[in-house]
Amino acid sequence: MKFVIIGGDAAGMSAASRAKRQQPEMQVTVLEKTQDVSYSACGMPYNLADAGRSMDELVVRSAQAFREKQNIELFTGHEAKTLDAAKRQVTAVDASGQEHAFAYDRLLIATGGRPIVPDLPGMHLDGVLVLKSLEDGRRIKQYLAQQQVRHAVILGMGYIAMEMCEALHALGVAVEMVKPRPVLLPWLEPQLAEIVRQELMRHDVGVHDGCPVQHISKAPDGRLQVICADRQITTDMVLVAIGITPNSELAEGAGLELSVGRSIAVDRRLQTSDPHVYAAGDCADAYHVVTQAKTWIPLALRANRSGWAVADHVCGGSVRLEGVAGTGVFRVFDLEVARTGLNPEEARQAGFEPVHITIKTRSRAHAHPGASDIHVSMVGDRGSGLLLGVQMVGREGVAHRINAAAVALHVRLRVAGFSQMDLAYAPPFGPTWDPLLVAANQLQKKMP
Amino acid sequence: MKFVIIGGDAAGMSAASRAKRQQPEMQVTVLEKTQDVSYSACGMPYNLADAGRSMDELVVRSAQAFREKQNIELFTGHEAKTLDAAKRQVTAVDASGQEHAFAYDRLLIATGGRPIVPDLPGMHLDGVLVLKSLEDGRRIKQYLAQQQVRHAVILGMGYIAMEMCEALHALGVAVEMVKPRPVLLPWLEPQLAEIVRQELMRHDVGVHDGCPVQHISKAPDGRLQVICADRQITTDMVLVAIGITPNSELAEGAGLELSVGRSIAVDRRLQTSDPHVYAAGDCADAYHVVTQAKTWIPLALRANRSGWAVADHVCGGSVRLEGVAGTGVFRVFDLEVARTGLNPEEARQAGFEPVHITIKTRSRAHAHPGASDIHVSMVGDRGSGLLLGVQMVGREGVAHRINAAAVALHVRLRVAGFSQMDLAYAPPFGPTWDPLLVAANQLQKKMP
Repeated sequence: MKFVIIGGDAAGMSAASRAKRQQPEMQVTVLEKTQDVSYSACGMPYNLADAGRSMDELVVRSAQAFREKQNIELFTGHEAKTLDAAKRQVTAVDASGQEHAFAYDRLLIATGGRPIVPDLPGMHLDGVLVLKSLEDGRRIKQYLAQQQVRHAVILGMGYIAMEMCEALHALGVAVEMVKPRPVLLPWLEPQLAEIVRQELMRHDVGVHDGCPVQHISKAPDGRLQVICADRQITTDMVLVAIGITPNSELAEGAGLELSVGRSIAVDRRLQTSDPHVYAAGDCADAYHVVTQAKTWIPLALRANRSGWAVADHVCGGSVRLEGVAGTGVFRVFDLEVARTGLNPEEARQAGFEPVHITIKTRSRAHAHPGASDIHVSMVGDRGSGLLLGVQMVGREGVAHRINAAAVALHVRLRVAGFSQMDLAYAPPFGPTWDPLLVAANQLQKKMP
Repeated sequence: MKFVIIGGDAAGMSAASRAKRQQPEMQVTVLEKTQDVSYSACGMPYNLADAGRSMDELVVRSAQAFREKQNIELFTGHEAKTLDAAKRQVTAVDASGQEHAFAYDRLLIATGGRPIVPDLPGMHLDGVLVLKSLEDGRRIKQYLAQQQVRHAVILGMGYIAMEMCEALHALGVAVEMVKPRPVLLPWLEPQLAEIVRQELMRHDVGVHDGCPVQHISKAPDGRLQVICADRQITTDMVLVAIGITPNSELAEGAGLELSVGRSIAVDRRLQTSDPHVYAAGDCADAYHVVTQAKTWIPLALRANRSGWAVADHVCGGSVRLEGVAGTGVFRVFDLEVARTGLNPEEARQAGFEPVHITIKTRSRAHAHPGASDIHVSMVGDRGSGLLLGVQMVGREGVAHRINAAAVALHVRLRVAGFSQMDLAYAPPFGPTWDPLLVAANQLQKKMP
């Protein structure tokens, strides 16, 4: 059995390792276009925030270890160029431009995603940077160190943009964030998004939403100029963090079916429309446990889990992945922001009749010192009474609390059922009625 | 409709308030034997730790507010003495010894629990104290201030004992904890209990388990002596925190059915064996969602929730309480200790065939600064594959994480199902695979 994997990060190396552990005699080949495999991509903003740490600390397991300890055929610097599904063959090009063919019995496409770079004049200039690969991280770190960056503009206001904002701020860099639409985090309940905006402003971050960039140019003094219709920002560095798009061209070229956001369509066994070809990680779609429809939510846990599931299948197992609830969390300065499931707009689009409430409660018990506000927004379906989604913002107790709601979504709990959960209580950790229960109690009143 | 409530803390005042909000014309009468109602009993250790704060800060709503703003007939200093279920009448005695009769259409017994005081010589001595009511809290606070307590012995090593240990330590008091059985927290996985022991010792707390106290006496210099078989501890104060027992004598005297640990037996509607009489809070039993059997786990959330449910019933509603998962958390110094569901021994007693694992992982992502160990112990049932219980210990990320497992227990998830949960991930908050998922993945391997 020849198992070929394209892409050596979360999904790809999870699959390679697990397949090799289960069947040491299997021939497992990984083609990775960069020099890096198996690193914590999500850790890059935090690593960048600390000039004293090397980016290489983020490598969980080296290419050499995969090769020598696990006997995986790992080709770094090999970019897959074509996939011939009928012949079951992939061709890849190495650093010298030489082409190599790899035949497979089973193929995993784990090509991940790439940053979206807007098609604007000036995006090619020195100092306009993206963050996706570890190589991108090294480049940014080097740029920050060598160019004595005092000011940065971040294009985008999503998870990564927020984390990079905090990281740059920690380095003493003044940050301004710019995006075309006049809304900070469009998926977030406006009241909660406003709290995030206040937190950014409290840290002197310039927040320019509703500000489409027209072009970027070089000022006479060598600095960069971000030109918008009504303003112009002079800066030392521009970080593009608008979002990512799946690397699905290889799959598309081979005639495989695509899905939401041009991700590769896979079933619950991670099989693409060609049963010999799997896809996993940021390049693949998934089922959403609330809507039961296809979705594309590129996050790390799903990548690792689906890599494992592919390995299990290739080794003869039969695990079916339930899907994703869209659970996510990020920190921005002193705030934790988390979500799971659908917001009212997503619920409406999925055919539900959303009812929602937003409540404010405290992070610790009555009269307990050090308490801060916790804001919870909760969405239910008027017809069925089902819980559809939860969002939370607060200074503590948000990141892990969201998981109780995620489990409830997986098992299709009704709001009334969720309000009966026996959640933990002690004064340092929350009020007697957990913020999630306060929200569920309130939401229930609005449901028939 | 005359609704009489015996006991004015969590369950009692929750019921009184909610009934009055729903039906303002209802006559709601509360009999409370102390002078205090509606206070955060769980907050007392934290309040004691801060000499500058008044115990009265813990009062959530004053007796006066209940009387004047909600028109509740609230009799403080009235101790219920007899219940005549046939006549539907309660008699109570006031501070002057005068007896009063209260007729009811519906009665709620919310008499709570009282500390267990061992029957040993010397328990009556000055400086031997218990902590249950707010009056107890005031007494301890006053004693600490006036007697210049430098050393304290705590009898017991449960939640409250641990919290009081931390509180006294914060006041600069040297603490020694004593209990008869040679085990710190008998319900906790031994590996996890050992971490708690290390934490106590790291803070110079004397841990004397396996040390039955024979008596307490007064030393010639006025200090207290705690006399055990093989040692003798001289101290300024003894705090008895062995556990509580339900105040069910009134119910028993009226012929109502008792249950686990002499708690009052109630159904899912909180009705006792007399349909006109409800019981709620620490004096009442509950269904356990994992075993579906009766249990007695006196915790605050359940008390508040069942108080509400009684009010709903008295007002014509029909909510049924699902039960408790036995979810609890406490902090001791820098550790968070949490549990939900059954440990292996409890599982065995309930007729399951427990399989369990204990894993150690980290509280933050690979290479993220500030990470510490998180220990998870997880129990499943070999036959059904059901998740039965989880325990966790760690310096961060434990208290709220346990709730995801609690929800899973409520809905009877299998370990395999739980391992598929889409839990939140970001580097400051945990590894990509949440500690609960790592444990579920490991436990699955041990299940057929």
